[in-house]
Order: sequence, then structure tokens, then C-alpha cells
Amino acid sequence: MRIGILGGGQLGRMMGLAGLEMGLEFHFYDTAADAVAGQVAPLTVGAYNDWEKLQAFAAGCRLVTYEFENVPLETAQFLRQQGAEVFPPPLALEVAQDRVVEKTFLQGLGIPVPLFHAVLTKNDLLEGLERTGYPAVLKTRRLGYDGKGQALIGGPGETERAWEELGGQPLILEAFVAFEREVSLIAARGRGGQTAFYPLTENWHRGGILRQSEARPVGLEGLFAEACGYATRLLERLEYVGVLAIEFFVVGGAGSPAGTRLVANEIAPRVHNSGHWTQNGAGTSQFENHLRAVLGWPLGSTGARGQAAMLNLIGVQPSPTQVLQIEGAHHHWYGKAVRAGRKVGHVNITADSPQQLQERVGRVKALLESLA
Amino acid sequence: MRIGILGGGQLGRMMGLAGLEMGLEFHFYDTAADAVAGQVAPLTVGAYNDWEKLQAFAAGCRLVTYEFENVPLETAQFLRQQGAEVFPPPLALEVAQDRVVEKTFLQGLGIPVPLFHAVLTKNDLLEGLERTGYPAVLKTRRLGYDGKGQALIGGPGETERAWEELGGQPLILEAFVAFEREVSLIAARGRGGQTAFYPLTENWHRGGILRQSEARPVGLEGLFAEACGYATRLLERLEYVGVLAIEFFVVGGAGSPAGTRLVANEIAPRVHNSGHWTQNGAGTSQFENHLRAVLGWPLGSTGARGQAAMLNLIGVQPSPTQVLQIEGAHHHWYGKAVRAGRKVGHVNITADSPQQLQERVGRVKALLESLA
Repeated sequence: MRIGILGGGQLGRMMGLAGLEMGLEFHFYDTAADAVAGQVAPLTVGAYNDWEKLQAFAAGCRLVTYEFENVPLETAQFLRQQGAEVFPPPLALEVAQDRVVEKTFLQGLGIPVPLFHAVLTKNDLLEGLERTGYPAVLKTRRLGYDGKGQALIGGPGETERAWEELGGQPLILEAFVAFEREVSLIAARGRGGQTAFYPLTENWHRGGILRQSEARPVGLEGLFAEACGYATRLLERLEYVGVLAIEFFVVGGAGSPAGTRLVANEIAPRVHNSGHWTQNGAGTSQFENHLRAVLGWPLGSTGARGQAAMLNLIGVQPSPTQVLQIEGAHHHWYGKAVRAGRKVGHVNITADSPQQLQERVGRVKALLESLA
Repeated sequence: MRIGILGGGQLGRMMGLAGLEMGLEFHFYDTAADAVAGQVAPLTVGAYNDWEKLQAFAAGCRLVTYEFENVPLETAQFLRQQGAEVFPPPLALEVAQDRVVEKTFLQGLGIPVPLFHAVLTKNDLLEGLERTGYPAVLKTRRLGYDGKGQALIGGPGETERAWEELGGQPLILEAFVAFEREVSLIAARGRGGQTAFYPLTENWHRGGILRQSEARPVGLEGLFAEACGYATRLLERLEYVGVLAIEFFVVGGAGSPAGTRLVANEIAPRVHNSGHWTQNGAGTSQFENHLRAVLGWPLGSTGARGQAAMLNLIGVQPSPTQVLQIEGAHHHWYGKAVRAGRKVGHVNITADSPQQLQERVGRVKALLESLA
């Protein structure tokens, strides 16, 4: 059975490798001829509105899924009209592609989100700032990723600069959340409605790019049930099929009267960078579970096997020998050319105890810092 | 870096998938155009003495390894002359390809083997039977696999039939070993001489074909050190680089004066069917560790993660849904056409306890029996 995947980056590549192990066949579709998934399965290079190419692509696949959330909605709908099953459902794309739609949708489900205000004109921005106060963050409604398309407004004097940078397109103003920690939940829902949740993962970003993830973070055990509750509402409302990630801010610490709680930052209707540790640290990887879900197969165990963490390789290429001489380190490399700021691989780290994990993570970080 | 692999069956395919995850590139060489590794990387179809094709193959690879032990020795040597590094060393092929050479070699290292006798003529056979007594097993010296090229001689009246079946080629007569259980050890040795051993695996054959493997078999814990000792001698004497399997008979039970001990049956200088459970049940799979070894990279953890077993899919194609609804089951499928007696996939089963493993293995076996 051949599965079509829209997008041929590392997420698609890793999904393909997980599926080839189960005897599945793949066909990728990407706008770039050097998309790295093309190294593991056939790749059609075309625009997302090249209907002729998309028609041929759909004809060869019983099922189409995607590895990124910015697939145009009309592309997904066109493939459905061509007779291909498309999962996750296009509604999830619609919700995830626009930050105002996304936050409105989450709010409607009773999932806490930062105070936000839709901004088209400069007047909207000033109105919004009266609601949010300072600091606030102005973001594009669409196509932002890895911290791109965002401007922090620390005080009234910074409004003009932010507007100059981003104005003239649909924007969203969000109250800045003074978060203590950041976590994500990777959830899966099968065709029959079966759900499964990986343990919470703590994430560290720098320059808007994910640097490090750690499964089962100490001190946040109490938030898992809350996160699963939110995810369940979301998955069911979307009639979701596949793997989905929700990123949360953790706010209000021990000193807060309300106690620690979660505020949703964004959702990704796909496998997610913060779930890469599952390749070596869980009963079933997020890639395999996404495929199982969209194929209507039973989901696999999302339980952690020991402790696990992940460090992204961003614009650096350590030698595999350097990485692998650190016990518990697993080297993942995407077959990309190395460029500054580009995610080119990751290192998963497994261990038997939190202490051992910290020691091993420290050694990998020291290696990466020595190369930066 | 591109790695050439001689042989494009499921072992090569799984090695390729493990390596693609680490950013490696592969090129396979096989005599069959439908070799399944060709589904995951480029495949050259040619004979093992097609020197022109082999030359072009070698030119594209810095390093060549193999997935089966019947690669002609002159092919390995030719590739070396072309400037490619070839691991495991061709000496291992030489030893493993001929049962008399193999047993003589093992014996020379003090590793127990069954009483054996080289047979070219019928007179050799009669001489041999005087030494071994009955029952004995007559086997071809070369190219036997999965129980092919073997005849059991239960008593003098069966000698003629065995000779008619196999006579006229170099043979070996072996005393029949009244074994209690069968185990294998999967060992790895790196370029720098580092060794690592997976836990002992118990194996069950039927019709000469491996059906089931189980890691860390209960009651045989005491034999691990003995097996590692034998493997260490063998790896060092061969100056081995890569993964190697040794199959042993377990003889002499609780009632035996000598106690339980190991008798080597055969070696395979490659990844091995009885090591497939490592894909889901060990810190590092045998496929990844073979690549790490031949590349000169540090070996990964061979420790078991919980309990693990494997059942081969032989001439049957269960639906993935049937397999995966059994908790802890992992579906591996090779992309082959299903034919009677053909290994077309395997199911790895993981569990937290031996009892849970038995229960899950029982469910997978019941499924497979319902399809047979």
C-alpha cells in the first residue's frame, strides 16, 4: 500500500523510514527538488497548486497525509476530490494555519490561551495593546515558524518599530505570558477514536528554535492529566486522525495562588520536533503511531522506556564518533547540507535515571557547544 | 558516505533502514532484480563474478559489507583490490562457508563442536559413521541454509538413502547432538577491538527454519559468560569487525554429571535472524551496531530493554491490524511476495515481565496458526 506524503523534509523522511520497516511504500510531494525525504522514497517536485501533478500523485496513493501544517487547504481538498483519503482532516489544517482561528477554537473548547487581539490596522494594534498591556507579542497570523514573523513589544516606545516590521498583513497581538517552563503533549487518535498520549515533554527554545526536549520532566507530573484533558477535547472536536502536538506554557509556580497550570501556545497537526525522543525512548515512535493512526491500525504503546531527551543539531555537524561515544546517545541525521540555523539532525539520549540522563545530556551539550 | 552491501534481501534492507536514520547512504548488489533492499536504496543487479559491474559498484562506495555469508571469497577480495574497505574480513567468509573448515577452526580455539568427519566418498561416510555412531547427520559442506542439504541417518539402514540424496559433493558427517535447547549469541566487534554481546537468545526451529526467538531465556542465565568467552576467542582470532552470530546447542541438563554446557553448531558472519528482536528490545539494534562496527564508530548498548521475543512470518501475511492489536507487538514486513516457506516478515514482541511476554507470544502464535 502506497502512502502519499505532502512535504518531504526530515519529518516526512523519518515517517517514511518508520513505515518502510512495516513494509509500507511512500511517495512524497514537495516544492523543493532537494527535499531529503526523496532520499528514501520517490519524490514529485511541484507547486501545491499544480493540479495536474497533484492529480497524478493522488492516483498513485490510496491515502495522503502531510508532514507540515502549511499545506494549502485547497490542496488537501483537491486530493480528497480525486478520491484519496486525507488524514489528518483538513479542518485541522484550517485551524492550525491561522493563529486567530486557532486561539478562538481553543478558547471555545475551554482550553486556556493567552489574551489575544486580531490586528489588521494600526488602530487595531493600539486597541489591542490597551487590552493586553505590556509586554505583548505581535505575530503574523499565518506561516510563522521557528520564531519568524514575531516582534516583542516591551513598552509603548516599541509599537512603531513592530508595526513597521510586520504591518500590512493579518496579524495577532498576544499578551506576553510570563511562563516558568514550556511543555508539549504529543497525542494520537486512531480512525476508530482510540487515543493515546506520550508523556509530557519539557522544551527549551533559543532564538525561537527548539533546542532541547526532555520527556517526563521532574516537577510537572501533576500537569499530565490536565494536558490530556485538553488534548482529548481538541482531538474529538476536530474528529482528528493522526499525531498532533500541543505546546503549552506552564504558568503560576508554587508562589501563585492559582497553582501551576497550562496555557496553550500553539498546536501542530502533525508529528513534532518535541516528539523525536520517542524514536529511542518510547514503546512506539510518534512516526510509527502517526502511520498506524492514519491507516486505521491499532495505536502502539506511548509509554516511556526509561528516561529520554533530545538535542537538535542546528547548523552543526558533529562526527558520529563524537556523538556515539557518549553512552545512551543515538545519532539521527537528515541527509541535508549544513547551513547556519538549519535543523540538520538530532541526538536522542536515553538513560536509566534522571541523574544519568542529566549527565549524558550535559556531555552532548558540551560537545555541541565546542562546535558552535 | 555511501556503503555498499553485497546481498539485497531483508537483512540488507533492515540494515539500510537503520543506517538511513543516521544519514548514511547505501548501494546494494544482488543477483536478483527483485531483491527487496532495492526498495530502500539503489540496487545493482549482477553476478558475483561480473567484474565490470563489481568495479563500478566498488568505485561508488568507500566501504563494503555483506548481509549473507555465501558471498564468494574472490568477490570480497576483488573489491578490496579495487580500493574498497571490506568488513567483516574475508577470512570470516572463508571459515563460515565450509562446515569442515568452520568446525576445525572452532575446535582449534577450544570451542566445543559435535564430533565430525569430512566425507568425499562413500567409504569416508562409513568410516565416519563408525566414529559418530547413530543417529548422525550428513550435510553439504557448502551453501546449506534453513535445513536444506541435510539428511539424518537414524541407523545403518538409512545410510544408502542419505548417500543417494547428497553424495557426489563435499560433505560433512556430524554426530547428532541430543540437545535440550538451542541458543544463539549475537556479538559485535568494532574496528578498535571493542566488543559487545547481546543477551543470549533461545531459538526454536521447525523444518530447519527458525520460527521463534526469545531473549534472556529463563534457566540459561549461567551460560552467558561461557558463550561470551567463546565468542571473544573467535572474534579476536578472526580480527573480526561487525556483527557475528554463533548458534549453540545446550546439552546435558540438571541430570547430567557434566552439568549444562554449550556446543557450537554454526557461525554466521553477519546480522542474524535470531537477533531481530534487538530492533524493539535492545538499546541498539543489531543492524545499527553492525554499521557502527564496520564504520569504526563506537558500539551502542546491547542491553535488553525489558523482555523480548520474535516470531517469523513464514509464507503467511497476517493483516497488520491483527498483529498490532496485540499489545507489545511490532510488525516488520520485508516487501516480498508471499510464497510457502518464505520468510516475509517478523513480529517482535516486547513486555515488562517473562509472564507477560509468554502471554503475548501465545496470542501472536495463535494468530499465525489460525492463518497457516
